[in-house]
Amino acid sequence: MFLPVRILGTGTYLPARRVTAAELDARLGVAPGTVLARNGVETRHFADREETASMMAAAAVQGALRAEGLAAKELDAILFCGVMSEQPMPSTAILIHRRLEGRAEGVTCFDINASCAGFMKGLEMAAAGIRAGMWRRVAVAAAELASKGLRWDDLDTCTLFGDGAAAAIVGPAEGEEGIIEIRNATISEGAELSVMRAGGSRFNMRTPPEDENDYLFAMNGRALLRLIQNHFPPFLEELLRQEVDVVIPHQASAVGLAFLRKQLARRGEGPGVMDILAETGNQVSVSVPFALHRAIESGQLRRGRTALLVNTAAGVSLCGIVLRY
Amino acid sequence: MFLPVRILGTGTYLPARRVTAAELDARLGVAPGTVLARNGVETRHFADREETASMMAAAAVQGALRAEGLAAKELDAILFCGVMSEQPMPSTAILIHRRLEGRAEGVTCFDINASCAGFMKGLEMAAAGIRAGMWRRVAVAAAELASKGLRWDDLDTCTLFGDGAAAAIVGPAEGEEGIIEIRNATISEGAELSVMRAGGSRFNMRTPPEDENDYLFAMNGRALLRLIQNHFPPFLEELLRQEVDVVIPHQASAVGLAFLRKQLARRGEGPGVMDILAETGNQVSVSVPFALHRAIESGQLRRGRTALLVNTAAGVSLCGIVLRY
Repeated sequence: MFLPVRILGTGTYLPARRVTAAELDARLGVAPGTVLARNGVETRHFADREETASMMAAAAVQGALRAEGLAAKELDAILFCGVMSEQPMPSTAILIHRRLEGRAEGVTCFDINASCAGFMKGLEMAAAGIRAGMWRRVAVAAAELASKGLRWDDLDTCTLFGDGAAAAIVGPAEGEEGIIEIRNATISEGAELSVMRAGGSRFNMRTPPEDENDYLFAMNGRALLRLIQNHFPPFLEELLRQEVDVVIPHQASAVGLAFLRKQLARRGEGPGVMDILAETGNQVSVSVPFALHRAIESGQLRRGRTALLVNTAAGVSLCGIVLRY
Repeated sequence: MFLPVRILGTGTYLPARRVTAAELDARLGVAPGTVLARNGVETRHFADREETASMMAAAAVQGALRAEGLAAKELDAILFCGVMSEQPMPSTAILIHRRLEGRAEGVTCFDINASCAGFMKGLEMAAAGIRAGMWRRVAVAAAELASKGLRWDDLDTCTLFGDGAAAAIVGPAEGEEGIIEIRNATISEGAELSVMRAGGSRFNMRTPPEDENDYLFAMNGRALLRLIQNHFPPFLEELLRQEVDVVIPHQASAVGLAFLRKQLARRGEGPGVMDILAETGNQVSVSVPFALHRAIESGQLRRGRTALLVNTAAGVSLCGIVLRY
């Protein structure tokens, strides 16, 4: 399988409010240095009232369009990726569409939820739709408001996450570029290890959970790490049969990134690894496209080179995409 | 564009609890006959506590697999379609995966939200993924718990909706069958006409809406009808350039179905129209796959014949798929 598609432009949005580890120490009433020590996140951004998912995602899409001199009317599809839609109805993709000046009408819009791997599925679907001849230009946009789902009494998680948005415009290949490989795994035995139990159709305002904390993110870090230690190395090994110039991983955690680096190091001098965790925190489904944007902007990913986008996500699911940029 | 795919099997699930119009009259304290008169829905089903989205969708998937003698391990992807995920994290598709005996691990799972058109997008993505060579067997499963999102003081809507699930297994074509045409339109000026404003990342437990009713479904029926009267006829006209044996529409409302029949009648003796509204109510994204299952089961859609699947949805969006079954 080879999907001849091209990442045209990328864009990002960070909320205006930047929150340092020191500020979070004070807010949480913990000793100075506690927040930074826990996950190594120096700064993250938290969205304000007006910075909704569609507002942030639309800004990222506009940036991605501008980067390539494209107009909104050239888009055939808008795929929004996030753990939650901005509101259940209509889709966030339609709310993004409404924010784009000069938009066309014959557009497909829908939202994708695949936890931290949302953008990966969006990119896969964009590539499949283009390959199948359904679309020519697709905006894949992720936005997350992780700050609204944190337990402030759980230092492991509340020190880790940040908000933001990132987008990529995908189109047909113009040369040799494209998606070389896609791998997915779903280990649903791990479905309880990383959860937001309430806030969907099961537990909500009408049928509330017993514990209001069920609306918030909870993780069994130790069990999750054990599962990933078992399943991820062989999964990664398969992906690395391809030559890879740069690895763009989900910014899961400092421990997760260190584990990835160790796997790569076992193979000798490996590819570079994008690491933006200290600056942005874990941005859920935004981390991969945000790091992709940075890799392109910084020249770490240049045309003709290959990147491995790789994710672990709640579920537990594993996803890898190898692309020639 | 032609996508050579085959609808292999279909399946459905209806909650055990069947609610008649008379029962709803009594519950709402209105005169006998009021509920039936409003939308023509004689019975609908409301899910109980254990009938979650993943439970109902998994039952529909199992039915669809059985219909063709397929095993769960043959699935390459599970796409869940619904206005809400069962819980924000992990995806409902993964919760469905966990319920399937003999499931394989190398599966892609994600959730799609496109309001009432979720299944249409899922079917498009299944077809694209198969056409692109990514997948061979895809389960597209919709489940809705509309009953949890109704205002019992709004007779127009609380008399209309029902719960349930439906699924289709999609695979590569074996003969001449496939998707002949796909059309989509997004008229995002209508984004406020049909909404659930709260219960996503914008308004939720942490940042509540001013009005708790914002968690529930609200519709500006008159403005919505006006918009659809303007945009739908030319949209339908384009789709009917294809020969169509049976029309499988979203069961939006009695008024919506009558409007569709009128459009078809203008062309002389037209194709039959699946109408299950009186029995199931509007099941949101489940209506189209549920009616598709019925069309196949009843022989109204036979191998070699063509069906037009057609949806209006919140957003406002219009979707049409013409397929040779």
